[in-house]
Amino acid sequence: MTYCVGIMLEEGLIFASDSRTHAGVDNFASFCKMNVFERAGDRVIVLLSSGNLAGTQAVISLLRQRASRGRECSLWGAESMFDAALLVSDAMREVDRRDGQHLTDSDAGFNASFIVGGQIAGELPRLFRIYAEGNFIEAGDQTPYLQTGETKYGKPIIDWVINGSTSISDAAKCVLVSFESTMRSNLSVGMPIDLICYARDSLDVRMRRRFKPGDAYFTELGRQWGEGTREVFRRLPDLEW
Amino acid sequence: MTYCVGIMLEEGLIFASDSRTHAGVDNFASFCKMNVFERAGDRVIVLLSSGNLAGTQAVISLLRQRASRGRECSLWGAESMFDAALLVSDAMREVDRRDGQHLTDSDAGFNASFIVGGQIAGELPRLFRIYAEGNFIEAGDQTPYLQTGETKYGKPIIDWVINGSTSISDAAKCVLVSFESTMRSNLSVGMPIDLICYARDSLDVRMRRRFKPGDAYFTELGRQWGEGTREVFRRLPDLEW
Repeated sequence: MTYCVGIMLEEGLIFASDSRTHAGVDNFASFCKMNVFERAGDRVIVLLSSGNLAGTQAVISLLRQRASRGRECSLWGAESMFDAALLVSDAMREVDRRDGQHLTDSDAGFNASFIVGGQIAGELPRLFRIYAEGNFIEAGDQTPYLQTGETKYGKPIIDWVINGSTSISDAAKCVLVSFESTMRSNLSVGMPIDLICYARDSLDVRMRRRFKPGDAYFTELGRQWGEGTREVFRRLPDLEW
Repeated sequence: MTYCVGIMLEEGLIFASDSRTHAGVDNFASFCKMNVFERAGDRVIVLLSSGNLAGTQAVISLLRQRASRGRECSLWGAESMFDAALLVSDAMREVDRRDGQHLTDSDAGFNASFIVGGQIAGELPRLFRIYAEGNFIEAGDQTPYLQTGETKYGKPIIDWVINGSTSISDAAKCVLVSFESTMRSNLSVGMPIDLICYARDSLDVRMRRRFKPGDAYFTELGRQWGEGTREVFRRLPDLEW
């Protein structure tokens, strides 16, 4: 499995992804699921991938190869984040056309999906989730975040804490706790965690961190969070019978 | 779906269940999923049911009918909670023998499962989870709680807060927040919530509450929890880049 989150705030965007891939519990590995297409002053496009690794890698390779050849039909040439999402969708369908039937014949099937977000000069930041079929949804005011993969464990903490006006700083801490909660319950999600906090209109990635196993900040965050929540419970009004 | 939780603490046991049943989103109803077999001074046995409603009701009806006829082969005669769990398992397999093939023929299948816990005089409190197949596991020191149904949303909060030595009072509040988190994310789990806190060696149910939609305590608990967690995040150390 996988866990990826994208959040759209008034201050900017947050992206986070885990790194675990596996085929059963006896065959797991670590791959970065975060890909960035960045040209300072012009655009920042972040892709978070989940699903079958062969599929997501093929899509990213196609997008990188086209980008390396220039602007035409590539993420460097996209005039809006909507166009960028269409290009990712097109690449997904191309991989599906090539591999889909072969996978279906083996009872598998193409199942890559992506969170795509960022900002292109002249536009506000935008955030999309592209389904395996290539259709997609865009985050809005009422639902400012999108998740893929093993989403349930880490959802309540985001619901409790984050809305559009949450600061990047608080939202980043919340996302890390959301990952801590998920990894504690599910072996298929694992470190390192990749985190990008993109400040609106910066058109530049200035805040990027990778949290490896044993990371001192991540460990301390989890400890203080656990202590803090237990303290909140002690202060909550007791039930009367 | 459903959400049920049983927790084994040094101070006693906690049981909680939601009340929503549904067949698709356009056909939902409310049924209590908590059943109690109680004889003060002798035994308290609590069953939380999840799965197909026809199946769980048939199991409970069988157990009630046998109990009404006396001690033999009934929950009134069980000499231990292990024997009580075996009786529930036997009833499940009996219903499966009657209905299973008919359900499988319609692409459904028997899928009732139960959390069974309580205390019988002469024994310590015990807590079991019985799978649809009728086999079961028992909670222990390292994993003092068992869930069924839509378990993922509400699991992290229990992991953060509860261990065997948590007080009944704090654990009850935590379980209610676990339900609040689940209902916020999943339409298939809904109020009323039934809650029993059983004090070890009391052999009597003295703390039982039903939380209906709009319950003042439940609403206030959720509000204060949300406020408390946001405050914890503000105090957590900020990330440095």
